[in-house]
Amino acid sequence: MSLLVVGSMAFDAIETPFGKSDKIIGGAGTYIAWSASNFTKPIKQISVVGGDFPLEQLDALSTRGVELEGVQIKKDEKTFFWSGRYHMDMNTRDTLETQLNVLENFQPVVPESYQDCEFLMLGNLAPAVQRSVIQQMKKRPKLIVMDTMNFWMEIALPDLLDVISMVDVLLVNDTEARELSHEFSLVKAAHKIMEMGPKYLIIKKGEHGALLFHEKHVFFAPALPLEEVFDPTGAGDTFAGGFIGHLAKTKDISFENMKTAIIMGSAMASFCVEKFGTQRLTEITKADIDARLEEFVQLVNFDIDLV
Amino acid sequence: MSLLVVGSMAFDAIETPFGKSDKIIGGAGTYIAWSASNFTKPIKQISVVGGDFPLEQLDALSTRGVELEGVQIKKDEKTFFWSGRYHMDMNTRDTLETQLNVLENFQPVVPESYQDCEFLMLGNLAPAVQRSVIQQMKKRPKLIVMDTMNFWMEIALPDLLDVISMVDVLLVNDTEARELSHEFSLVKAAHKIMEMGPKYLIIKKGEHGALLFHEKHVFFAPALPLEEVFDPTGAGDTFAGGFIGHLAKTKDISFENMKTAIIMGSAMASFCVEKFGTQRLTEITKADIDARLEEFVQLVNFDIDLV
Repeated sequence: MSLLVVGSMAFDAIETPFGKSDKIIGGAGTYIAWSASNFTKPIKQISVVGGDFPLEQLDALSTRGVELEGVQIKKDEKTFFWSGRYHMDMNTRDTLETQLNVLENFQPVVPESYQDCEFLMLGNLAPAVQRSVIQQMKKRPKLIVMDTMNFWMEIALPDLLDVISMVDVLLVNDTEARELSHEFSLVKAAHKIMEMGPKYLIIKKGEHGALLFHEKHVFFAPALPLEEVFDPTGAGDTFAGGFIGHLAKTKDISFENMKTAIIMGSAMASFCVEKFGTQRLTEITKADIDARLEEFVQLVNFDIDLV
Repeated sequence: MSLLVVGSMAFDAIETPFGKSDKIIGGAGTYIAWSASNFTKPIKQISVVGGDFPLEQLDALSTRGVELEGVQIKKDEKTFFWSGRYHMDMNTRDTLETQLNVLENFQPVVPESYQDCEFLMLGNLAPAVQRSVIQQMKKRPKLIVMDTMNFWMEIALPDLLDVISMVDVLLVNDTEARELSHEFSLVKAAHKIMEMGPKYLIIKKGEHGALLFHEKHVFFAPALPLEEVFDPTGAGDTFAGGFIGHLAKTKDISFENMKTAIIMGSAMASFCVEKFGTQRLTEITKADIDARLEEFVQLVNFDIDLV
């Protein structure tokens, strides 16, 4: 009945126009777990870290209800490392350095105790790794959500298309949707991508919000206009965590409930960008989240009498 | 009790990645009047055209309830002409040619029969022209809405700031908001601009929707995701026409009603871009508009139970 999350747990070093972080904790799996843990537990995590990964970070996740049996610790190897620099618009960034380390030969193993999971969140990783997790599940989860990025479109497209054909919900950003579909119009892109397999497609547009497509339907969730975006790293993963967390909590995978889930994801992402790394996600309370959700309601609420 | 619209009436020649128009009817005042005429009448128009402007275009506006006493026809001069080419993203364009013609020495005159107008829409024009209209009004209108563009920020900033200080609602796009405020964050930009005078600020973001700011409040209206944007020319003016048209119809200038007005403006803009120039605006019916508004409701409607 629980949520299985697959994703990297990593070190990041981030530069933005507003500052520079030390080597801090990052990784899609980390952000997803922190975010989703506000909605549901247990969360059954699959990942891999090196001997240099701080155990207190794993403990912090444990106390949030994140089970770590599926997190491999390779004592003699080093954790995945990424560093990047954001441009002034905070929507584009350059990768300064990538050290794959433990991710290079990552073979995910789904523990027996994870086999009951009904919700599977595949964080951004090599498509072959994502597929391996799906294939290890003895019973297909009720809902499989997949995040990916343009990098895999460029170096592993056949694998990527194969995994895309196996999932229910695909998450990409607007640039990636265009690259994957060869369509400029996001509406046309969405319909082409849904023909590749997923019944639902979420197109993330950063500060411009997110679109959810399903058959002929479309839903738009705004991003909260913020005074300051301090660090966008992990915002997409945090969004995914809030989305799948709400679905796993409510066990309702209707289009209507996915709309609510996207607002939850957007609210969580709006916290993520307020500080470097996962910092803000480790601080927020239920009251903070409720207040933020109320801001979203106010942001888009309007009255129209259609006679 | 009626709406006064000031704005150019012009010829445009437009190139997009999808096609090329002949010399067609355009101008901010034209788009605003066509759009607003779906909501309110009479509309009292102030503009200037040359002897080459087709009288049947003026007649068509007349039959929509647009009064033309304030439209000067300079028989021996030529109408303002603009031609431009849109880039693939349809958000950016290059001006190919501008012929000011009758606009060069335009001195607007507010007829006596226009003095009862409670709503004043200042379409994009030289700030000195906009100011002249405000100054000719014996009684200040209940609501003054002003559109402008970056061009005036660059060549007539002192005049522009003067007019901005006299209006209630300012409309700019995101780039212009940043240029005017010297702030990158749109939230910070909005607060700086509201300190210049306007109690309300609308920041248009094209395909990414529009934001309405007032004091500490913010409202977001999405743009409808479209399969195809055929020609974005006039979309901002059409938006403004729907906005002021709804306010003039309802005579309610509360923040709540401005939210509704922005959705009306967004719906009208979504029609505008479907064909070249004003073509689509001259075709649509009340039923088309209602159906489009229903799409907007569906697009952003979600349920959240905050306990």
